[in-house]
Amino acid sequence: MDRSIPLIKHFVALIKMDPFDSSGRFIESLAQKVIGSLDLKVVQKFEHTFKPDGITLGFVLAQSHLVIHTWPESGTIHIDLVACSPIKEKKFKQALISFLDKQNIQLIEVKAVNFF
Amino acid sequence: MDRSIPLIKHFVALIKMDPFDSSGRFIESLAQKVIGSLDLKVVQKFEHTFKPDGITLGFVLAQSHLVIHTWPESGTIHIDLVACSPIKEKKFKQALISFLDKQNIQLIEVKAVNFF
Repeated sequence: MDRSIPLIKHFVALIKMDPFDSSGRFIESLAQKVIGSLDLKVVQKFEHTFKPDGITLGFVLAQSHLVIHTWPESGTIHIDLVACSPIKEKKFKQALISFLDKQNIQLIEVKAVNFF
Repeated sequence: MDRSIPLIKHFVALIKMDPFDSSGRFIESLAQKVIGSLDLKVVQKFEHTFKPDGITLGFVLAQSHLVIHTWPESGTIHIDLVACSPIKEKKFKQALISFLDKQNIQLIEVKAVNFF
Protein backbone atom coordinates (compact mmCIF):
# COMPACT_ATOMS: atom_id res chain seq x y z
CA MET A 1 0.00 0.00 0.00
CA ASP A 2 1.61 3.22 -1.19
CA ARG A 3 -0.26 6.34 -0.15
CA SER A 4 1.67 8.47 -2.65
CA ILE A 5 0.15 6.61 -5.62
CA PRO A 6 -1.61 8.15 -7.41
CA LEU A 7 0.00 11.53 -7.05
CA ILE A 8 -2.76 13.81 -5.74
CA LYS A 9 -2.12 17.54 -5.58
CA HIS A 10 -4.85 19.41 -3.75
CA PHE A 11 -4.93 23.18 -3.32
CA VAL A 12 -7.66 25.25 -1.73
CA ALA A 13 -7.87 29.02 -1.98
CA LEU A 14 -9.89 31.39 0.13
CA ILE A 15 -10.23 34.83 -1.37
CA LYS A 16 -11.82 37.85 0.23
CA MET A 17 -12.69 40.70 -2.09
CA ASP A 18 -15.42 43.13 -1.34
CA PRO A 19 -16.92 43.90 -3.75
CA PHE A 20 -16.12 41.52 -6.58
CA ASP A 21 -17.74 40.83 -9.91
CA SER A 22 -19.96 37.90 -9.00
CA SER A 23 -21.28 37.33 -12.51
CA GLY A 24 -21.07 33.85 -13.97
CA ARG A 25 -18.89 35.26 -16.75
CA PHE A 26 -16.29 36.60 -14.34
CA ILE A 27 -16.12 33.38 -12.33
CA GLU A 28 -15.89 31.34 -15.54
CA SER A 29 -12.97 33.53 -16.67
CA LEU A 30 -11.26 33.03 -13.33
CA ALA A 31 -11.68 29.26 -13.71
CA GLN A 32 -10.35 29.31 -17.26
CA LYS A 33 -7.32 31.28 -16.09
CA VAL A 34 -6.51 28.52 -13.57
CA ILE A 35 -7.21 25.77 -16.10
CA GLY A 36 -5.05 27.40 -18.75
CA SER A 37 -2.18 28.28 -16.43
CA LEU A 38 -1.92 24.76 -15.06
CA ASP A 39 -2.52 22.92 -18.34
CA LEU A 40 -5.61 21.19 -17.06
CA LYS A 41 -8.07 19.47 -19.36
CA VAL A 42 -11.83 19.86 -18.88
CA VAL A 43 -14.02 16.84 -19.51
CA GLN A 44 -17.25 18.20 -18.03
CA LYS A 45 -18.61 21.47 -16.68
CA PHE A 46 -21.34 22.03 -14.11
CA GLU A 47 -22.89 25.14 -12.68
CA HIS A 48 -25.52 26.12 -10.19
CA THR A 49 -26.79 29.58 -9.31
CA PHE A 50 -28.08 30.08 -5.79
CA LYS A 51 -30.77 32.53 -4.70
CA PRO A 52 -30.43 35.32 -3.88
CA ASP A 53 -26.70 35.19 -4.61
CA GLY A 54 -23.77 32.90 -5.17
CA ILE A 55 -22.56 30.52 -7.82
CA THR A 56 -21.08 27.05 -7.82
CA LEU A 57 -19.05 26.53 -10.96
CA GLY A 58 -17.18 23.30 -11.40
CA PHE A 59 -15.23 21.25 -13.86
CA VAL A 60 -14.51 17.57 -13.95
CA LEU A 61 -10.95 17.47 -15.22
CA ALA A 62 -8.99 14.73 -16.87
CA GLN A 63 -6.80 15.31 -13.79
CA SER A 64 -9.67 15.42 -11.17
CA HIS A 65 -11.71 18.56 -10.39
CA LEU A 66 -11.93 22.31 -9.94
CA VAL A 67 -14.85 23.81 -8.06
CA ILE A 68 -15.45 27.48 -7.32
CA HIS A 69 -18.05 28.73 -4.86
CA THR A 70 -18.91 32.37 -4.33
CA TRP A 71 -20.63 34.17 -1.49
CA PRO A 72 -20.90 37.73 -2.79
CA GLU A 73 -22.65 38.95 0.37
CA SER A 74 -19.45 38.36 2.34
CA GLY A 75 -17.02 39.00 -0.51
CA THR A 76 -15.88 35.39 -0.53
CA ILE A 77 -14.55 33.14 -3.29
CA HIS A 78 -13.58 29.55 -2.45
CA ILE A 79 -11.59 27.52 -4.96
CA ASP A 80 -10.98 23.81 -4.63
CA LEU A 81 -8.55 22.17 -7.05
CA VAL A 82 -7.65 18.49 -7.01
CA ALA A 83 -5.30 17.17 -9.68
CA CYS A 84 -3.44 13.94 -10.22
CA SER A 85 -0.71 15.82 -12.05
CA PRO A 86 2.33 17.65 -10.68
CA ILE A 87 0.78 21.12 -10.51
CA LYS A 88 2.52 23.73 -8.39
CA GLU A 89 0.94 25.67 -5.55
CA LYS A 90 2.86 28.79 -6.54
CA LYS A 91 1.58 28.67 -10.10
CA PHE A 92 -1.99 28.21 -8.86
CA LYS A 93 -1.75 31.24 -6.59
CA GLN A 94 -0.07 33.30 -9.30
CA ALA A 95 -2.88 32.48 -11.72
CA LEU A 96 -5.41 33.80 -9.20
CA ILE A 97 -3.45 36.94 -8.34
CA SER A 98 -2.74 37.81 -11.95
CA PHE A 99 -6.43 37.53 -12.81
CA LEU A 100 -7.98 39.38 -9.87
CA ASP A 101 -8.02 43.09 -9.32
CA LYS A 102 -5.19 43.54 -6.82
CA GLN A 103 -6.66 46.72 -5.41
CA ASN A 104 -9.70 44.90 -4.13
CA ILE A 105 -8.10 41.76 -2.70
CA GLN A 106 -8.33 41.76 1.09
CA LEU A 107 -7.16 38.19 1.51
CA ILE A 108 -5.86 35.45 -0.71
CA GLU A 109 -4.73 32.35 1.09
CA VAL A 110 -3.85 28.99 -0.40
CA LYS A 111 -3.61 25.74 1.50
CA ALA A 112 -2.24 22.45 0.27
CA VAL A 113 -3.82 19.20 1.41
CA ASN A 114 -1.16 16.52 1.71
CA PHE A 115 -1.58 12.91 2.72
CA PHE A 116 2.07 11.94 2.46
CA MET B 1 -13.33 41.38 6.56
CA ASP B 2 -14.17 38.27 8.54
CA ARG B 3 -12.57 35.10 7.21
CA SER B 4 -14.89 32.93 9.26
CA ILE B 5 -17.95 34.11 7.30
CA PRO B 6 -19.35 32.11 5.66
CA LEU B 7 -18.69 29.04 7.77
CA ILE B 8 -16.85 26.64 5.47
CA LYS B 9 -16.24 23.10 6.67
CA HIS B 10 -13.93 21.16 4.38
CA PHE B 11 -12.98 17.53 4.88
CA VAL B 12 -10.89 15.36 2.61
CA ALA B 13 -10.61 11.60 2.94
CA LEU B 14 -8.01 9.31 1.44
CA ILE B 15 -8.99 5.67 1.52
CA LYS B 16 -6.85 2.73 0.50
CA MET B 17 -8.69 -0.53 -0.09
CA ASP B 18 -7.38 -3.18 -2.37
CA PRO B 19 -9.50 -4.48 -3.88
CA PHE B 20 -12.70 -2.44 -3.65
CA ASP B 21 -15.93 -2.50 -5.60
CA SER B 22 -15.23 0.20 -8.16
CA SER B 23 -18.66 0.06 -9.79
CA GLY B 24 -20.59 3.28 -10.19
CA ARG B 25 -23.33 1.79 -8.04
CA PHE B 26 -21.00 1.19 -5.10
CA ILE B 27 -19.47 4.67 -5.27
CA GLU B 28 -22.93 6.22 -5.56
CA SER B 29 -24.02 4.31 -2.45
CA LEU B 30 -20.94 5.53 -0.59
CA ALA B 31 -21.78 9.10 -1.59
CA GLN B 32 -25.40 8.69 -0.52
CA LYS B 33 -24.24 7.37 2.84
CA VAL B 34 -22.21 10.55 3.40
CA ILE B 35 -25.02 12.77 2.14
CA GLY B 36 -27.61 11.09 4.32
CA SER B 37 -25.47 10.94 7.44
CA LEU B 38 -24.62 14.64 7.29
CA ASP B 39 -28.06 15.87 6.19
CA LEU B 40 -26.75 17.35 2.96
CA LYS B 41 -29.04 18.34 0.13
CA VAL B 42 -28.18 17.52 -3.48
CA VAL B 43 -29.01 20.09 -6.15
CA GLN B 44 -27.07 18.53 -9.03
CA LYS B 45 -25.16 15.34 -9.78
CA PHE B 46 -22.31 14.81 -12.23
CA GLU B 47 -20.34 11.76 -13.20
CA HIS B 48 -17.51 10.80 -15.48
CA THR B 49 -16.05 7.38 -16.15
CA PHE B 50 -12.40 7.22 -17.10
CA LYS B 51 -10.76 4.61 -19.30
CA PRO B 52 -9.59 2.05 -18.51
CA ASP B 53 -10.66 2.56 -14.89
CA GLY B 54 -11.79 5.15 -12.39
CA ILE B 55 -14.84 7.26 -11.73
CA THR B 56 -15.43 10.85 -10.78
CA LEU B 57 -18.79 11.17 -9.08
CA GLY B 58 -19.83 14.53 -7.74
CA PHE B 59 -22.72 16.44 -6.30
CA VAL B 60 -23.37 20.13 -6.12
CA LEU B 61 -24.97 20.51 -2.71
CA ALA B 62 -27.16 23.24 -1.30
CA GLN B 63 -24.23 23.42 1.15
CA SER B 64 -21.36 23.30 -1.47
CA HIS B 65 -19.98 20.07 -2.98
CA LEU B 66 -19.01 16.44 -2.60
CA VAL B 67 -16.68 14.85 -5.15
CA ILE B 68 -15.40 11.28 -5.13
CA HIS B 69 -12.57 10.06 -7.35
CA THR B 70 -11.47 6.46 -7.61
CA TRP B 71 -8.25 4.88 -8.85
CA PRO B 72 -9.05 1.15 -8.69
CA GLU B 73 -5.61 0.19 -10.01
CA SER B 74 -4.02 1.51 -6.81
CA GLY B 75 -6.97 0.78 -4.51
CA THR B 76 -7.57 4.48 -3.91
CA ILE B 77 -10.73 6.45 -3.13
CA HIS B 78 -10.46 10.23 -2.63
CA ILE B 79 -13.41 12.11 -1.14
CA ASP B 80 -13.65 15.89 -1.08
CA LEU B 81 -16.47 17.46 0.91
CA VAL B 82 -17.02 21.20 1.27
CA ALA B 83 -20.04 22.43 3.20
CA CYS B 84 -21.18 25.75 4.53
CA SER B 85 -22.98 24.00 7.36
CA PRO B 86 -21.65 22.83 10.73
CA ILE B 87 -20.87 19.26 9.72
CA LYS B 88 -18.59 17.23 11.96
CA GLU B 89 -15.38 15.53 10.88
CA LYS B 90 -16.09 12.60 13.18
CA LYS B 91 -19.51 12.01 11.65
CA PHE B 92 -18.02 12.17 8.14
CA LYS B 93 -15.40 9.57 9.00
CA GLN B 94 -17.94 7.39 10.76
CA ALA B 95 -20.19 7.44 7.70
CA LEU B 96 -17.29 6.18 5.58
CA ILE B 97 -16.19 3.50 8.03
CA SER B 98 -19.70 2.21 8.60
CA PHE B 99 -20.25 1.84 4.86
CA LEU B 100 -16.96 0.28 3.83
CA ASP B 101 -15.90 -3.29 4.38
CA LYS B 102 -13.64 -2.99 7.40
CA GLN B 103 -11.68 -6.08 6.51
CA ASN B 104 -10.39 -4.52 3.31
CA ILE B 105 -9.53 -1.02 4.55
CA GLN B 106 -5.78 -0.49 4.59
CA LEU B 107 -5.96 3.23 5.25
CA ILE B 108 -8.64 5.77 5.98
CA GLU B 109 -7.39 9.22 6.78
CA VAL B 110 -9.42 12.40 7.02
CA LYS B 111 -7.99 15.89 6.91
CA ALA B 112 -9.78 19.14 7.70
CA VAL B 113 -8.95 22.27 5.72
CA ASN B 114 -9.27 25.30 7.96
CA PHE B 115 -8.73 28.93 7.09
CA PHE B 116 -9.46 30.33 10.54
